Amino acid sequence: MAKPFLLGVLGGMGPLATLDFQQKLLDATPADSDQQQLPSVVWNVPQVADRQKALAGRGPSPLPQLLLGIEKLNQAGVSHIVIPCNTAHHWFDELSYASAAPLLHIVDATLEGLVALPQKPQRVGLVATQGTLDAGWYQRALAQKGMEVLLPTADELQQWFVPGCYAVKRGALREGGELLSLQAQALLARGAEQLLLACTEVPLALRTVAAPFLSLTHDPAQLLAQRCAEIWLEYRHSYFPHTQSNNWNK
Amino acid sequence: MAKPFLLGVLGGMGPLATLDFQQKLLDATPADSDQQQLPSVVWNVPQVADRQKALAGRGPSPLPQLLLGIEKLNQAGVSHIVIPCNTAHHWFDELSYASAAPLLHIVDATLEGLVALPQKPQRVGLVATQGTLDAGWYQRALAQKGMEVLLPTADELQQWFVPGCYAVKRGALREGGELLSLQAQALLARGAEQLLLACTEVPLALRTVAAPFLSLTHDPAQLLAQRCAEIWLEYRHSYFPHTQSNNWNK
Repeated sequence: MAKPFLLGVLGGMGPLATLDFQQKLLDATPADSDQQQLPSVVWNVPQVADRQKALAGRGPSPLPQLLLGIEKLNQAGVSHIVIPCNTAHHWFDELSYASAAPLLHIVDATLEGLVALPQKPQRVGLVATQGTLDAGWYQRALAQKGMEVLLPTADELQQWFVPGCYAVKRGALREGGELLSLQAQALLARGAEQLLLACTEVPLALRTVAAPFLSLTHDPAQLLAQRCAEIWLEYRHSYFPHTQSNNWNK
Repeated sequence: MAKPFLLGVLGGMGPLATLDFQQKLLDATPADSDQQQLPSVVWNVPQVADRQKALAGRGPSPLPQLLLGIEKLNQAGVSHIVIPCNTAHHWFDELSYASAAPLLHIVDATLEGLVALPQKPQRVGLVATQGTLDAGWYQRALAQKGMEVLLPTADELQQWFVPGCYAVKRGALREGGELLSLQAQALLARGAEQLLLACTEVPLALRTVAAPFLSLTHDPAQLLAQRCAEIWLEYRHSYFPHTQSNNWNK
């Protein structure tokens, strides 16, 4: 028998995005009872140095605190680890190297999800932190699959994205949603057909303002949750085939 | 310096109630940044034998799985543990005994919250599982504080409470909310002035049907979250007095 499935979530970046990701895991998992739901351990410790500031050279590295989370999740016996924070993927290689459990990359899950769409988007606007934009993961992956990418300008980031993102982190979801909505609309106005909301604070803020363009967006956190649910369902089906309706543990 | 504050949440019972509890922790914590939010580790493993069936003598005990969660949370370094499931408090003593970190009891937090109200309720209707009702914790604690308690009848539980509760567990929140709403209204009709929603599935289901009597209810999970937030704020204030606005980690 393979190592029992147990998802490790390296969260806290931010804590609300970590909750939103857990909701997405539930939504992505068909289940008739508690016992059929995906098991997880969530390290939701937000005392991690600011990722955006660290990458801008204006603050300490979050790596030591992220490594602590990876260590604790491994001790808890997790079989896989995910990080519901795009920017933190800057440290993905170091964290993978330190982890016995494999880490699933949010960009891989996103691209798998996008190419599986009935109509693959052609021109994708990327809503993300400067750190994620500088890393170039999404740009390279989208280009490889033949999709064109539109990026926020430095002015847009400073005026809308950054303050929107920090508004979410202090719980001002509506204010954040309004600012992030302006960022999203700017990309659409410049020709993006669809948007990739590649910062886990963004979708939850846009929801609160019921942004009219939400149907044109893709959410990497949701695509990552979907990938986790697929792995869990495969495991559940192999090892608990009798639990297809309400009789787990009976 | 005291052991660093880190809340352990023994969750999974059910997984949606565990999420709801985490949302309540966020709501109960004033914070200007990610870093000011309460740190937690959440063992959200729903593969725990059914508590209601175990207490009715119709299924295996969940104790071994609960003890595993307690062990893993302690290994992760938690300073306190809470269980956002009233029924699981049946095993509170065994779990406390096995845990280095103290467990906070949901009934204690609830009573502290109720007696601190400007107007203490006189006649309280108790919405809870048969297991919680049989245990008598809430009845004794409320009586000690001079409050009268009204209980659901066996018929009401069978007709409304139990199917409502299991509806929530399979994600049918609205259906659950309608059934649980009937249970709540029956208690109000028999003279309860206020209701104690002493099963963590209940408040989240009633919210979805926008039950008109919600202002008359008290939610033990919320009162427990409030208690946790108080402990965190005291710790944060003692050890991080400079983090009162947006400058943690700067």
